[in-house]
Amino acid sequence: MLIVMKSEAAQNDVERVKEKVRSLGFVPHEIPGAQRVAIGITGNKGGLDPNLFLSMNGVQDAVSVSKPFKLVSREVKQEDTVIDVGADRIGGRELTVIAGPCSVESRQQILETAEILRDMGVRFLRGGAFKPRTSPYAFQGLKIEGLEFLKEAAERTGLHVVTEVKDTETIAAVSECSDILQVGARNMYNFSLLERLGELRKPVLLKRSFAATVEELLMAAEYLASRGNYNIILCERGIRTYETYTRNTLDLNAVPLLKSLSHLPVFVDPSHGTGRWDLITPMALAAVVAGADGVIVEVHPDPAAALSDGFQSLRPDKFRTLLARLQELAPFAGRQLTLAPSFKISATN
Amino acid sequence: MLIVMKSEAAQNDVERVKEKVRSLGFVPHEIPGAQRVAIGITGNKGGLDPNLFLSMNGVQDAVSVSKPFKLVSREVKQEDTVIDVGADRIGGRELTVIAGPCSVESRQQILETAEILRDMGVRFLRGGAFKPRTSPYAFQGLKIEGLEFLKEAAERTGLHVVTEVKDTETIAAVSECSDILQVGARNMYNFSLLERLGELRKPVLLKRSFAATVEELLMAAEYLASRGNYNIILCERGIRTYETYTRNTLDLNAVPLLKSLSHLPVFVDPSHGTGRWDLITPMALAAVVAGADGVIVEVHPDPAAALSDGFQSLRPDKFRTLLARLQELAPFAGRQLTLAPSFKISATN
Amino acid sequence: MLIVMKSEAAQNDVERVKEKVRSLGFVPHEIPGAQRVAIGITGNKGGLDPNLFLSMNGVQDAVSVSKPFKLVSREVKQEDTVIDVGADRIGGRELTVIAGPCSVESRQQILETAEILRDMGVRFLRGGAFKPRTSPYAFQGLKIEGLEFLKEAAERTGLHVVTEVKDTETIAAVSECSDILQVGARNMYNFSLLERLGELRKPVLLKRSFAATVEELLMAAEYLASRGNYNIILCERGIRTYETYTRNTLDLNAVPLLKSLSHLPVFVDPSHGTGRWDLITPMALAAVVAGADGVIVEVHPDPAAALSDGFQSLRPDKFRTLLARLQELAPFAGRQLTLAPSFKISATN
Amino acid sequence: MLIVMKSEAAQNDVERVKEKVRSLGFVPHEIPGAQRVAIGITGNKGGLDPNLFLSMNGVQDAVSVSKPFKLVSREVKQEDTVIDVGADRIGGRELTVIAGPCSVESRQQILETAEILRDMGVRFLRGGAFKPRTSPYAFQGLKIEGLEFLKEAAERTGLHVVTEVKDTETIAAVSECSDILQVGARNMYNFSLLERLGELRKPVLLKRSFAATVEELLMAAEYLASRGNYNIILCERGIRTYETYTRNTLDLNAVPLLKSLSHLPVFVDPSHGTGRWDLITPMALAAVVAGADGVIVEVHPDPAAALSDGFQSLRPDKFRTLLARLQELAPFAGRQLTLAPSFKISATN
Repeated sequence: MLIVMKSEAAQNDVERVKEKVRSLGFVPHEIPGAQRVAIGITGNKGGLDPNLFLSMNGVQDAVSVSKPFKLVSREVKQEDTVIDVGADRIGGRELTVIAGPCSVESRQQILETAEILRDMGVRFLRGGAFKPRTSPYAFQGLKIEGLEFLKEAAERTGLHVVTEVKDTETIAAVSECSDILQVGARNMYNFSLLERLGELRKPVLLKRSFAATVEELLMAAEYLASRGNYNIILCERGIRTYETYTRNTLDLNAVPLLKSLSHLPVFVDPSHGTGRWDLITPMALAAVVAGADGVIVEVHPDPAAALSDGFQSLRPDKFRTLLARLQELAPFAGRQLTLAPSFKISATN
Repeated sequence: MLIVMKSEAAQNDVERVKEKVRSLGFVPHEIPGAQRVAIGITGNKGGLDPNLFLSMNGVQDAVSVSKPFKLVSREVKQEDTVIDVGADRIGGRELTVIAGPCSVESRQQILETAEILRDMGVRFLRGGAFKPRTSPYAFQGLKIEGLEFLKEAAERTGLHVVTEVKDTETIAAVSECSDILQVGARNMYNFSLLERLGELRKPVLLKRSFAATVEELLMAAEYLASRGNYNIILCERGIRTYETYTRNTLDLNAVPLLKSLSHLPVFVDPSHGTGRWDLITPMALAAVVAGADGVIVEVHPDPAAALSDGFQSLRPDKFRTLLARLQELAPFAGRQLTLAPSFKISATN
Repeated sequence: MLIVMKSEAAQNDVERVKEKVRSLGFVPHEIPGAQRVAIGITGNKGGLDPNLFLSMNGVQDAVSVSKPFKLVSREVKQEDTVIDVGADRIGGRELTVIAGPCSVESRQQILETAEILRDMGVRFLRGGAFKPRTSPYAFQGLKIEGLEFLKEAAERTGLHVVTEVKDTETIAAVSECSDILQVGARNMYNFSLLERLGELRKPVLLKRSFAATVEELLMAAEYLASRGNYNIILCERGIRTYETYTRNTLDLNAVPLLKSLSHLPVFVDPSHGTGRWDLITPMALAAVVAGADGVIVEVHPDPAAALSDGFQSLRPDKFRTLLARLQELAPFAGRQLTLAPSFKISATN
Repeated sequence: MLIVMKSEAAQNDVERVKEKVRSLGFVPHEIPGAQRVAIGITGNKGGLDPNLFLSMNGVQDAVSVSKPFKLVSREVKQEDTVIDVGADRIGGRELTVIAGPCSVESRQQILETAEILRDMGVRFLRGGAFKPRTSPYAFQGLKIEGLEFLKEAAERTGLHVVTEVKDTETIAAVSECSDILQVGARNMYNFSLLERLGELRKPVLLKRSFAATVEELLMAAEYLASRGNYNIILCERGIRTYETYTRNTLDLNAVPLLKSLSHLPVFVDPSHGTGRWDLITPMALAAVVAGADGVIVEVHPDPAAALSDGFQSLRPDKFRTLLARLQELAPFAGRQLTLAPSFKISATN
């Protein structure tokens, strides 16, 4: 059940509706919107009578929601969610590129990469400091030191930092040094982590597990939203199939599907989604045309020397070409590429 | 092993190379190109010495081929294959749309659809007369009668017909009435059928099985090519995964991958690849940006009344919008949309 | 809809019911049983009124069938189907082993293998003469010559021959030389082939496609049954997943599931289902305990020299151990191992 | 690299080898065995020279290990690992049954279930107190209260408790009340949790993710072992495929494969692996014949009233039949069913 308030409803009206919901034994979730406030109700199994609310002051409508996800659904909120990150925005008409190496490998590497990206007008820097790895013997990231290098890179270049938070123990440290918290594919089902991130208000980039259904991804987002954090970016990064030429099968069907089911921004990661640098550019472009709000791409100054995932990283020159293509394509998709002010990318400059 | 002939080599030189190959116990396959002829050699396990050929008249190079597919590989032929269908062409700079209903249901339905499509400038009409169906009790198509309706529709409108050939018994009948023979996903591993189609020179639209690897699709194409039929269009139409919101998972990774591995044109079927009419348009556009040479789309004058797959068919008005979007997007992808001469689609006309 | 006749019903009564079905515009399928006859009705969409039949002479019951497969379902026939092959039987209390090489490679190889198997009491010899292969350049079997070798092996040893029929063109030749016609996994969706085999009365071993659902396997069987051939053995042989240590994932869940959904015998192929000789024995035993009516196992006198699939073939001594284990296990599963009369296998003799 | 010590080697010799390993910049892992000690070395990339160790006192052999998992591999330790849980043992010749409800739902429910199981001779009680659920609105378990009920049930009946630990925050509380800590399928990639559990010595039942390869499962176990906890039980519980008749596809191939790759005990969960109560018994039996050391089965006094997973739970009477069948089958698999002393199950008592 979702209660939609009139645009002229007072905060007072909202509070009374929430009280009524609690008095019936359910939980109200206030969902702010540009035009009006809505109140999601969870805990009910579909049996609530709309008439209980329709006669209340300030209530415009009471609608039942048919999907297992509620707060993140389009049924509950029709406008696109737009997320503010500093002076930049994600979602809506923006087309956003997040770029950087798989792992922070050294101070010099991340500073150099950040400067290269800044010089192209990019606004978001990715880089892993805490790396979940299949093998306990593999490089697990520079950890706290890596976070500090990211922070320094951000301060020098003005870029926003996107980095993975791997467990509840390191949430505070990672939050301190980053603007967007990434939940990796292997942690999409880590509900304890999601619950804790739901208590923050910092944006979360939530990657789809390589074995998750679209519905499960939305349910993971619902974990965040049900605790009050609506600053969620969904991210398709490839699912596991029998195909062996590519590391994963990028499921672009999921993009228009998620956009129709949910009001949240949807990103695509063509690096993990293909596992091959030569497929990154076509698949990034395809993602945008399919409706993605942004892409997250691995860029490394020297892919052959990367400590992890070099094979799926772009060199800076190839990345510049991708940026130029994205800028060219954005208007077709009804978007504008988010770049530093007055930037104009060209593949050859 | 592939022998590349000089551009000035005489047919005589070619014949001598082929004779030499046979004398060594292998099979030569002459591969004509715009610039020069090449000769693929099959039957060898990599042990052939290039020097056996390099000193022969007219031979420019002898290269070993590392993939299990040879004749369809880019290694063997670098230029894109372009297929002539009447006065129209598939591949190269062309962006082609094949459209029509899943099944031919009646004379009136297919004539009406063909006229609608002709009026939009479309050049290729699809429609199933022989339908492989999971259930023996389901509608299996109008068969011979359906072929005749297709033929009549083609004669009236000038469209080229693309229709499925389901078994060897009906190859002659289907060939008689169609310009492109479609091999359905369920028949991709039907090697007896592929062998027989390899003996024809009629173009074949070869759909990837929903469980085939990219390599297996290319090996199926190799069956056709090894019998002499190089007029092959590869078609991605979705693979089977655990996802249930979509009928299949459209594997667009396969598009740039196939384009880099093979010289053959690559099409995408977003109708079967998604199973939902509302995903067809974004995924068709994404396919083009990923590098596809064309799309095959189900269009039905009245989807709700369709005998099969209505849920994944576009209504004519939605299809017109798709065409307009494709025309707008084609230059970005370095293409031009193949339409009847001097046609200019607009979503609103 | 299924009409169950009384055990004392006369053939006359049966005919009258069938006539009535036809007069209503549907198709009757007579299904003989040990106790009584039943009549399946296809072509109806569930709307038939049982009362139309209940008052007729000899009719005991009229039940509606809820699954898309009818004639092969347990709902329609509760007793296990038992198939006669010469003096031997498949299904019911029998536990059957089919053994032999992947391909017939030479006269000597198949005669030697047949004699080895006969000496162990085995009754069914497998061996491919027509081999569907992913590559057009791979060994495709000895074809007609291979069939003749199989026939000679059968005549010398008294074994029954199980061999693959790859296309409609070779049905007659393959039928001539074999007792059970195998439909390979890649042909499970080849409905034209299934229709032709449905017109025969020779037993068919129908392998599940590596991408088929259990329901689709039963629908393929329904193709055979709807044409009148009820002598069907279903065979699970592994499905395709992301796992790479094994060639396929053997889906033993399918065994008790198929036994509960259908009256047909169910076999398991642990050679293809695992792709590793060292997993064949444990998985063959597991299959029997899960409810399988038999196993089909690749046995080769010299696996290292096999032209195909040597890595998943057992040597004769390992196979003898498997047989001994199966004989020991059969009573637990309520079965007896089908061997030549008065045979007693021991792993050490 | 693995250093195998002589059986007569002194602890002194062992220490000197470990010191040598450290001096080379690597990490030694002492692996105790019934006959002799071994020392695994991690951190090297295969370049260590065996001669560095072969001349040292007490060293019998130095072998390189070819798989990415080392400490859990058969290469490193040939004997089966046997885990002591109180006076009971898991692994070796034991065949173990863990049974109980999906969730602890009430004090009465878990006490009643524990008593039913105790009366059948069962030694291990399962029951979830902390439940990871796809929906944030679903029942998440009784949490601490549930743990207390489990503890009381254990004290009353003498059963050992197996319960899930969902995150690092609750490790202490869960450890306090349970004898075996279960890591659920969704947490198999939660490396932070694995690291913390690796620091304990309490046995861990590690469930395979529904999308994990066999190698990834072994790498997750390696996380535990590399921190010193060798008390690991691997558990296959079904993988996710396109099949819809069953909840998951139970991959029994994994059982003999894991037994050959690793020295750890391997369990199977036929409840989650099938999702259907009617398939539990055949698949539990099949698992044992395939080589499993035990099964974990959902048993509920009243499945229809269960708060979670009732459809895949056995009623007590069906479970008694399963126990009797397992006892009958155990000798065939070279095992004895672990029951309370002098128990003799019969399906009818």
